[in-house]
Amino acid sequence: MFEDNFSSVLLSDAVSEFAKLPGIGKKTALRLVLHFLKRSDNEVQGFSNSLIEMKKGVKFCEICKNISDTKICNICSNPKRNHKIICVVENIKDVIALENTQHFFGIYHVLGGIISPLDGVGPSDIFINELIDRIKQNKPDEIIFALNTTMEGDTTSFYIFKKISNYNIKVTTIARGVAFGDELEYTDEITLGRSISNRVDFEINS
Amino acid sequence: MFEDNFSSVLLSDAVSEFAKLPGIGKKTALRLVLHFLKRSDNEVQGFSNSLIEMKKGVKFCEICKNISDTKICNICSNPKRNHKIICVVENIKDVIALENTQHFFGIYHVLGGIISPLDGVGPSDIFINELIDRIKQNKPDEIIFALNTTMEGDTTSFYIFKKISNYNIKVTTIARGVAFGDELEYTDEITLGRSISNRVDFEINS
Repeated sequence: MFEDNFSSVLLSDAVSEFAKLPGIGKKTALRLVLHFLKRSDNEVQGFSNSLIEMKKGVKFCEICKNISDTKICNICSNPKRNHKIICVVENIKDVIALENTQHFFGIYHVLGGIISPLDGVGPSDIFINELIDRIKQNKPDEIIFALNTTMEGDTTSFYIFKKISNYNIKVTTIARGVAFGDELEYTDEITLGRSISNRVDFEINS
Repeated sequence: MFEDNFSSVLLSDAVSEFAKLPGIGKKTALRLVLHFLKRSDNEVQGFSNSLIEMKKGVKFCEICKNISDTKICNICSNPKRNHKIICVVENIKDVIALENTQHFFGIYHVLGGIISPLDGVGPSDIFINELIDRIKQNKPDEIIFALNTTMEGDTTSFYIFKKISNYNIKVTTIARGVAFGDELEYTDEITLGRSISNRVDFEINS
């Protein structure tokens, strides 16, 4: 096995810790650690503290399970958002991505995972029951599925759809189609096929 | 400017700290921070501590300026190394790279930089005087220049060479040539030119 010859155990330990991070190899780990050597004690302390503070302080919103500094996240507690539209996503990264679009003004429900029998993740391992409870209590107008178009994403959407089908709620899913800027000839057949089947009325400045 | 909409200030702070690292963008920073959310408190504490401990505890060897946990690094204090051969390198990454080859058994001198007038780095800003002092005191048999083949590297080698030319020491530089596995047709002209000019006797199993 490849083993670096560091002349400092402290350096070696720090590099090992960095190399545990996903997508960070030994070389990058060394580069990052050497970068910290050049920074001031205060900066290194600030970096470490931000991580520890986050780990200690961060909560998950009691309503939508989104990441939050408070019991109820600032999306769920915002009276300007439409609390009758719930967008179902897999994880908090999806919330961030959707929030960045500034095109959605409802609220979220973060499942915290996706049904995946191969990985041993069943419906009870993710926040599906919590979603059903929310629907029972608050009677939303619309549920939007914004899950990935994988086998697991489709399974999860379908499972939830079946569970809530008797509540008489409008259920939608985000539009799939050719991405803006993408060329038709390089778009995969399933996407292109669906985008022609699900074509929409042409609008100027759409 | 692109600004992420995080629902947690703690998360946002941690992401900002990671995004300050070289080669780490906002997306990677988020990925890394979310990874820490999944890890245990102890693991996060361990990661942070390894960094703080390193920053506090790490020293630079009083002899060769290599990184070390002790006053004298374990290369300089190793009696099995040849203390009469000093390899001059730019930084501690070069020491690690050379040590990993397991082909060098002398000791090092880490300059901690390279002469670069454009960046305002002169001979007195790096450990050149310390190298001269070592040479005066210990009269080594050989000085090996292992600096990068850039304008700055060549300038630095030449500057040191002039300074030590009256000490009657053998001065060498690491061999330049076509890398193992590289194809001649894709090798740059300067490297190929030098490798033919500086050709060596053919040896079986060289």
